[in-house]
Amino acid sequence: MRVLIPFAPRDPKTRLSEILNVEERHLFAEVMLEDVAVAVEMAGGIPEILSTDMIESQWKVIVDDRPLSVAVNGVLEKSKMPIAIVMSDLAIATADSIRKLIESEGEISIAPGNLGGTNAFVTWREDFRVDYHGTSYLDHVKIAEELGANVTEVDSFRLATDIDVKEDLIEILIHGEGKSRDWLIEKGFHLEVKGQNRVGIHRSRKG
Amino acid sequence: MRVLIPFAPRDPKTRLSEILNVEERHLFAEVMLEDVAVAVEMAGGIPEILSTDMIESQWKVIVDDRPLSVAVNGVLEKSKMPIAIVMSDLAIATADSIRKLIESEGEISIAPGNLGGTNAFVTWREDFRVDYHGTSYLDHVKIAEELGANVTEVDSFRLATDIDVKEDLIEILIHGEGKSRDWLIEKGFHLEVKGQNRVGIHRSRKG
Repeated sequence: MRVLIPFAPRDPKTRLSEILNVEERHLFAEVMLEDVAVAVEMAGGIPEILSTDMIESQWKVIVDDRPLSVAVNGVLEKSKMPIAIVMSDLAIATADSIRKLIESEGEISIAPGNLGGTNAFVTWREDFRVDYHGTSYLDHVKIAEELGANVTEVDSFRLATDIDVKEDLIEILIHGEGKSRDWLIEKGFHLEVKGQNRVGIHRSRKG
Repeated sequence: MRVLIPFAPRDPKTRLSEILNVEERHLFAEVMLEDVAVAVEMAGGIPEILSTDMIESQWKVIVDDRPLSVAVNGVLEKSKMPIAIVMSDLAIATADSIRKLIESEGEISIAPGNLGGTNAFVTWREDFRVDYHGTSYLDHVKIAEELGANVTEVDSFRLATDIDVKEDLIEILIHGEGKSRDWLIEKGFHLEVKGQNRVGIHRSRKG
């Protein structure tokens, strides 16, 4: 299955600025992208990067500098079905979790992200279009239902976890199986138990 | 399968104090507990509440006022296998997600929670014991492996989502299928899109 991974290399992951400098944010975004693409490949998918700028990659890169929803819809309009769209910051996605997405029944299968996002989906319907603004999960379910499509939820913690803020890095240190985890450890990140049951993340040195 | 649901009715969900008063926190904790128990029952499990105080319930209640890990281990020592332990604040757990847990292969199957927690597990091994302190997911995997047990991860967004802070309520409004969602709506909670893509939660009136 064709699996499109949108990627925006310009000033990525700004909400991590408090703990990663701009160069580190670029590198980290690329490492996460690579982890996602490798997981897709191991699941039997064919990754393609949909990037706002040209980047070097071992995978096919499509450049489109329009906003995310417009660029994704541009591909959906022209692609053969089925096609999957998977976000580039799902750093704890594994081949198993991607396989759950790819093999999901339903004409449109959606993996919700934390706090209302749409982290990944597969469509067999060529008339499905995206709108990533707002509570996109609810919007996408609604759009799909309005098409009369059969919609399935893909219930995966690994696909629901996107990496935006410092606390999200905790999930990578605990559950990561790819290069993102190694990269964070190399940069001095480690877990810290705070109080009774809460876990924090701390950076002990500049990498 | 016997499914134990630990519950602590004294001053529950203190991190929700900014938006729920003490009486509301009690009611909300009970509504979430009921949603979890109903999901367990619909999945074919037999719910039992392990409570620090006597409570009224339509399900069997075992009272044990010792700390969580001690009380759970007290049951594990005496129970027939298999037995599952499911936290009482998994307000978006559904019959399907609980079934995934119950039917999971592996001598010990663990559903990780956000930020390192252990939100649910099943054990077929009578020598498994818990320690909910710190990054309990990693600890439980380690404990299980030291027993030579076959450990399986249950990858579920619905089981990974426990309700501790205000932002977690967003998940209930979006994904909840039980009484917790109805309760929040009745109390005036609703979603609000903040900025471009971020979703917040707002309470518009006192219920």
